[in-house]
Amino acid sequence: MIIVMKPNAPIEERNKIIAGLEAKGFKIDLSTGNQAAILGVVGDTSTLNPHDIMVNDWIEKVLRVQEPFKRANRAFHPDDSVIDVGGVKIGGRQMQVIAGPCSVETREQIIGVAKSVKMAGAHLMRGGAFKPRTSPYSFQGMGMPGLELLKEARAETGLPIVTEIMSADVLDKFVEDVDLIQVGARNMQNYSLLKELGRTNKPILLKRGLAATVQEWIMSAEYIMAEGNTNVILCERGIRTYETYTRNTLDLSAVCAAKKLSHLPVIVDPSHAAGLWWMVPALAKAAVAVGADGLIIEVHNDPEKALCDGAQSLKPERFAELMGELKGIARIIGRDL
Amino acid sequence: MIIVMKPNAPIEERNKIIAGLEAKGFKIDLSTGNQAAILGVVGDTSTLNPHDIMVNDWIEKVLRVQEPFKRANRAFHPDDSVIDVGGVKIGGRQMQVIAGPCSVETREQIIGVAKSVKMAGAHLMRGGAFKPRTSPYSFQGMGMPGLELLKEARAETGLPIVTEIMSADVLDKFVEDVDLIQVGARNMQNYSLLKELGRTNKPILLKRGLAATVQEWIMSAEYIMAEGNTNVILCERGIRTYETYTRNTLDLSAVCAAKKLSHLPVIVDPSHAAGLWWMVPALAKAAVAVGADGLIIEVHNDPEKALCDGAQSLKPERFAELMGELKGIARIIGRDL
Amino acid sequence: MIIVMKPNAPIEERNKIIAGLEAKGFKIDLSTGNQAAILGVVGDTSTLNPHDIMVNDWIEKVLRVQEPFKRANRAFHPDDSVIDVGGVKIGGRQMQVIAGPCSVETREQIIGVAKSVKMAGAHLMRGGAFKPRTSPYSFQGMGMPGLELLKEARAETGLPIVTEIMSADVLDKFVEDVDLIQVGARNMQNYSLLKELGRTNKPILLKRGLAATVQEWIMSAEYIMAEGNTNVILCERGIRTYETYTRNTLDLSAVCAAKKLSHLPVIVDPSHAAGLWWMVPALAKAAVAVGADGLIIEVHNDPEKALCDGAQSLKPERFAELMGELKGIARIIGRDL
Amino acid sequence: MIIVMKPNAPIEERNKIIAGLEAKGFKIDLSTGNQAAILGVVGDTSTLNPHDIMVNDWIEKVLRVQEPFKRANRAFHPDDSVIDVGGVKIGGRQMQVIAGPCSVETREQIIGVAKSVKMAGAHLMRGGAFKPRTSPYSFQGMGMPGLELLKEARAETGLPIVTEIMSADVLDKFVEDVDLIQVGARNMQNYSLLKELGRTNKPILLKRGLAATVQEWIMSAEYIMAEGNTNVILCERGIRTYETYTRNTLDLSAVCAAKKLSHLPVIVDPSHAAGLWWMVPALAKAAVAVGADGLIIEVHNDPEKALCDGAQSLKPERFAELMGELKGIARIIGRDL
Repeated sequence: MIIVMKPNAPIEERNKIIAGLEAKGFKIDLSTGNQAAILGVVGDTSTLNPHDIMVNDWIEKVLRVQEPFKRANRAFHPDDSVIDVGGVKIGGRQMQVIAGPCSVETREQIIGVAKSVKMAGAHLMRGGAFKPRTSPYSFQGMGMPGLELLKEARAETGLPIVTEIMSADVLDKFVEDVDLIQVGARNMQNYSLLKELGRTNKPILLKRGLAATVQEWIMSAEYIMAEGNTNVILCERGIRTYETYTRNTLDLSAVCAAKKLSHLPVIVDPSHAAGLWWMVPALAKAAVAVGADGLIIEVHNDPEKALCDGAQSLKPERFAELMGELKGIARIIGRDL
Repeated sequence: MIIVMKPNAPIEERNKIIAGLEAKGFKIDLSTGNQAAILGVVGDTSTLNPHDIMVNDWIEKVLRVQEPFKRANRAFHPDDSVIDVGGVKIGGRQMQVIAGPCSVETREQIIGVAKSVKMAGAHLMRGGAFKPRTSPYSFQGMGMPGLELLKEARAETGLPIVTEIMSADVLDKFVEDVDLIQVGARNMQNYSLLKELGRTNKPILLKRGLAATVQEWIMSAEYIMAEGNTNVILCERGIRTYETYTRNTLDLSAVCAAKKLSHLPVIVDPSHAAGLWWMVPALAKAAVAVGADGLIIEVHNDPEKALCDGAQSLKPERFAELMGELKGIARIIGRDL
Repeated sequence: MIIVMKPNAPIEERNKIIAGLEAKGFKIDLSTGNQAAILGVVGDTSTLNPHDIMVNDWIEKVLRVQEPFKRANRAFHPDDSVIDVGGVKIGGRQMQVIAGPCSVETREQIIGVAKSVKMAGAHLMRGGAFKPRTSPYSFQGMGMPGLELLKEARAETGLPIVTEIMSADVLDKFVEDVDLIQVGARNMQNYSLLKELGRTNKPILLKRGLAATVQEWIMSAEYIMAEGNTNVILCERGIRTYETYTRNTLDLSAVCAAKKLSHLPVIVDPSHAAGLWWMVPALAKAAVAVGADGLIIEVHNDPEKALCDGAQSLKPERFAELMGELKGIARIIGRDL
Repeated sequence: MIIVMKPNAPIEERNKIIAGLEAKGFKIDLSTGNQAAILGVVGDTSTLNPHDIMVNDWIEKVLRVQEPFKRANRAFHPDDSVIDVGGVKIGGRQMQVIAGPCSVETREQIIGVAKSVKMAGAHLMRGGAFKPRTSPYSFQGMGMPGLELLKEARAETGLPIVTEIMSADVLDKFVEDVDLIQVGARNMQNYSLLKELGRTNKPILLKRGLAATVQEWIMSAEYIMAEGNTNVILCERGIRTYETYTRNTLDLSAVCAAKKLSHLPVIVDPSHAAGLWWMVPALAKAAVAVGADGLIIEVHNDPEKALCDGAQSLKPERFAELMGELKGIARIIGRDL
């Protein structure tokens, strides 16, 4: 971390800052040239918040050089992390596709979709039992019975299951039953929940918050990892911008950024990003081309009857067709799918 | 809600949609003119999600006419709600000021600040015991002992206390001890927590999420109210934009919008919005001038030693001086403070 | 266009609005059901501005059904437009790649890069003679002599040239010398310039404004087309968001949206979007996979010596390698490159 | 400017960078401590672009310490600039109010409004003759005849006139006839136009671009000032965010920021920001309370008949009433109005 003093800062103020940092165990490289004094702070600066340091009015700017995350940092772990989710490896050469409906609705629906997506080549299945809806009057998901149906679908197809957790009070059940526990965009900075998940050893799918920077997103992964659980997979799902044509704006450059900064796998959710089913295939192809480690795609056997998000769901036939194209693109960029 | 069919939509598709909505108990006003057919949906459309309806490809657009919230809706409750917080009434002619440090740090600190802000005319005091920090390595707040110190400060000064809840597992204690329970921006859509708060009758201070629209913010209030607790106070605290000079962009037009759409009180937090102490007085004055029902301002007796957010804290003397100006502006616009 | 009256709107107000619109030549489909009255406005509503109509306080909402653009509208021109740029056809099955340096700097530089990109398979060449820089103290481009060097490079390689216009006072020269005239993001709503360009018949490359919606972007194309020039090519180049890791956020869903709404070709500029050379290849591949009609990529033979934007330029070898991968992806999605 | 090298950067690379900067006349303070080498660049760094410097891959970060603007910089001009506009001084203790319709429509309209706003206490009058409209099919303003009507209104009332320029080809006429030439948000980075305006000595009202940072906005002022014209007044008019309830989001913290960074006057346009007439008075009061140097407010004698932006115009009576409240708030904060 670098601290730039104001040109006219009194030496006592500078010394006060140096003393404060040395008291916390940091070493200071002081540079006083023709310009303002510059303090290079040496040590583990992840505990320091530039915003808090700015409190001294004689400081002009504070620049973080090292990223504020450690366990998620590629600098300290150059190789890609590969996370095992019920036998499916996410983060390696093989790209993995998660598919399924937004919500679990009935046994027929979830088992039917599970079979369809498996046949089309999906590697894991998704389905929401607990649903975060903007309105308290919208369908909130089946809850625990939905989880039971997901288990039945897994038993039928062998596909590991991915579903969202909204509250730590069902964590024991999720740890027992779910293969990949999803944290939704709205809970990306629910730190109490992240800490609890960090105390398990379950794979966690951490969606990027609605308006989270890449750094904040990785810091949320760091919350989980700091508690001991390093099985974190990042998921880009579109960010909030001024554009209203799509529900969110899919940020594929974030995939490049997150993979540069961190060793964690990064997958993409084109369905929630666009909110428009007809755009999903094009965005899914782009996500593979950009180098994501996988996709999570909404597929529903009867979108018009879906209890939620039907408008962004593909029908199984369209999904199967898409899988073929995705395989082709993966091959061109030297990956498998 | 109004559904506009595509110009060439088959009559069967239109009828299918009408039948589906009638089955849910809605009445349909059908208009077929020279243009496309238009369906006016009559009934309580708060249960309908326009995005979900768009699944039918023959629909051109869906327009919500009624707002999706009910209990928070000014249309059904034209008078301003006034919420009693430990005897202090928020939402009436009298504007109320909440002041105090970002975090509770020591007995001396919190009691000292409490006395200062009381003397300066503050009506309630704030102080964080549980702190949502971007980094797991930053100070996370004192936790329960911090809450005990807040109670001591209340005993000394008589000021009701406001503090943030991060997890429902401390809810019973908060209900017992806290006068106004704050939900932070990062938990604005933590629906599990909102529902739990809705089952109490405690006043809740609901901060606007980092990138929440005014409608989403009120919908989060609706989550609490739908469970029975109507004691909700909204708090604008700046939104995320592309501008980097300030930490967030204070959106004072949101105060006007929220008060137009809802009967709930709306207060403003200029400290978190700007993140720069020297900007707080100007923004506080603007917030009073725009017609907010109160303010929440960070005050610290020694900002440079603050464990968090010192850079946005006012010293007690500056706060006292500001209170005088705020009173003057309140008078001009026909309010008291 | 649909106008929804407030539930309690007096009939005279409604009639006043109807009379006003009929006086402008529109027909009105009036629907008065159990709910509020709804006015369907039939006619060419592209001349109406919903914001202006909202002036009547008895109107609840105004909904545009038809898009506000006509000549650029795919609804009235279902087939893809193909624009001929110096013999290179943009908008058909063949994807086209424009490559070259940010600025023209010297004869050697521009001719050298032109030869390199031609050898690598580029179809057109770019190079800025007039540069819009944030600072008046930064290099502003070579101006007219730069244009002469571009012409020399064209003479040497046969590649059509693409360069940016910043002011209509050089328009005659541009019309004579340039194959594809670029309008930069900052001038996307410089309507005086757009109208002047609309009076030529030169192909125009219209970059999306920094914070323009897809609709506003197409409306700017409409400004050019309304004057008679239908040779417009759209270019997505990243939008402004809160994310700071990349210079802008590349919005590939905008390619899908623009091609759905309009028949005009859409190309992508991954170099300006990211602002980071190492991210350009991944984003270029994604842009091809998503179905763009072409790319515009910065290539410089010595990025470190570049007078502007070296940080986002590829070296010729890296560009040549990328072209191979792009061809492979194009083939998978049924296009040529 | 501070350049931080990567920890493992070879000494030759560092030396290459130093040599390059020294060749441009800069002095370098080199600091090599326990951490990475840090280069302090001494000299007029406003000519350097951090983005361009980042081209060397051995550079970790580049931090600008000095702001990139000079003539607009408060550091070199600590006192507030006061600009004389036809005898009205903008930027001093006295706050100034500009009022009038969006567009000039008829002689009766503009003279009528001019008289009304003068009587209510406005100090200057506005009216658009050339209108930048999103659609080429919307009313584009009366053009030159509109300017003539503005002059008549000035002759009748004595109020200086403010109107927007869209193209340099009418500049001579504007210099002759207009008291304060407005550059609209869409042309804030039309550098050709800014340079031309910089070669006059007319007062310029520079609106903040739709998605411009405070720094970019001041850099556009710098473009005008670098050519010699220091009579620039900044105008905050709302920025583009994800919020859709208001047309734009008024950013009052930008007033504080711009006045801290620059000595130029800053006024506020609450009408274009909100786009909703009923919100204008509250926002105008907030703008005065925050310390703006003036306001520009849309007033129309018959908003429903306005050819543009009637929905955000106040009627003269409401404007007169507002002026009284504004005076009261100005007094409280130690200003006049």
